[in-house]
Amino acid sequence: MRTEYHEELAHLAELLHRMCVRDRAVIANATNTVITGDVEQAQNAIDIGGEVERMVAEAEGEALRLLALQAPVARELRQVVTGIQLTAALHRMGILGTHIATAARRRHPGLVVPEPVRPLVARMGAAAVAIATSAATVLVTPDPESAAMLDGQDDLMDRLHEELLTTVLDPGWGHGVTAAVDLTLVGRYYERFADNAVEVGRRTIFLATGETAERNSTDQRD
Amino acid sequence: MRTEYHEELAHLAELLHRMCVRDRAVIANATNTVITGDVEQAQNAIDIGGEVERMVAEAEGEALRLLALQAPVARELRQVVTGIQLTAALHRMGILGTHIATAARRRHPGLVVPEPVRPLVARMGAAAVAIATSAATVLVTPDPESAAMLDGQDDLMDRLHEELLTTVLDPGWGHGVTAAVDLTLVGRYYERFADNAVEVGRRTIFLATGETAERNSTDQRD
Repeated sequence: MRTEYHEELAHLAELLHRMCVRDRAVIANATNTVITGDVEQAQNAIDIGGEVERMVAEAEGEALRLLALQAPVARELRQVVTGIQLTAALHRMGILGTHIATAARRRHPGLVVPEPVRPLVARMGAAAVAIATSAATVLVTPDPESAAMLDGQDDLMDRLHEELLTTVLDPGWGHGVTAAVDLTLVGRYYERFADNAVEVGRRTIFLATGETAERNSTDQRD
Repeated sequence: MRTEYHEELAHLAELLHRMCVRDRAVIANATNTVITGDVEQAQNAIDIGGEVERMVAEAEGEALRLLALQAPVARELRQVVTGIQLTAALHRMGILGTHIATAARRRHPGLVVPEPVRPLVARMGAAAVAIATSAATVLVTPDPESAAMLDGQDDLMDRLHEELLTTVLDPGWGHGVTAAVDLTLVGRYYERFADNAVEVGRRTIFLATGETAERNSTDQRD
């Protein structure tokens, strides 16, 4: 039974990895839409977000089956429960990426981001893709060093987010309130995407090693 | 063992109810700060948010103990897993309420909401308190009618949120970009607070009846 348990747990981890890779595709497509205004990429992001949505039910079903058939206890029990919490974070990443795509599409044929701010938003998009890549790596190779890398990437996202807010709140901001409101929301979605990716990394280390994951407190500040 | 299981499940539900009542206190205090600028109420909100934070660990511990000692299967297993998901939603409500308090405190001694918009934000705050009250009721008396009421309250919150965005994006908006950005975030926090409360209601019905809860899709729109 223990072999079977570990095989099924590995299978769940593999499914979570695929979700994370899809989340990365959502945010990559969404960022392209934001930067280029290409609505086709917005639709891609939304479609892939729908795939993530379907994988949520699959992952929850896998976790429940593991609990029911293998009746894990102690550390193994906590691992499966962690798998359920990971599913929720990966689900949220997909939704947040989809929100960015939808925000961009709403302004079509205009662009949601004024030209001078595009390089900054492109950097936020790249940071989001990088952090999703790290989270996906941790899901297949759960070593604490990779998980620690996520914290550094999240700090970068926080700095970019701060820079975005400073730009928008600058008295010299000349792009109007609508762009400011759009960018406030888009910035928030990127930041929350990164927060959830960090949580994926931390919880995965726990899933793999049984060592206590620190509670994610990156969203306590604002 | 079944009696014991039901007693422990009832105990978990009672703890979740207390979390929800604390969440309501967080958002009530936060709203008061937003409307009156009273920073003491902001600190109350943040302190009570800290209590919710501590209750999360307690509720997760209870759920794990239930899984380990009672090894529930089938419907009962799903109920405990639902308890873990409820904990996450109630946790999120506390964080979002705290965000509103922090946003208000950041503008002290100024006020985060320009005078003409205060009645609207007060209505959003009242809607949030009402929805948290309903969610708490469902947690002690899980009948589907009370849960259905949550949907109506969430629709109201969505309409108020829409009205807030329309106000901020109106060409006649005369309160500057900072207030617009603050209100965009505060509005988003209220809306997500309500979404999570609706999720609490739906999942609680499942916890109590074992009947499939609809997946919450209220956050798919924006």
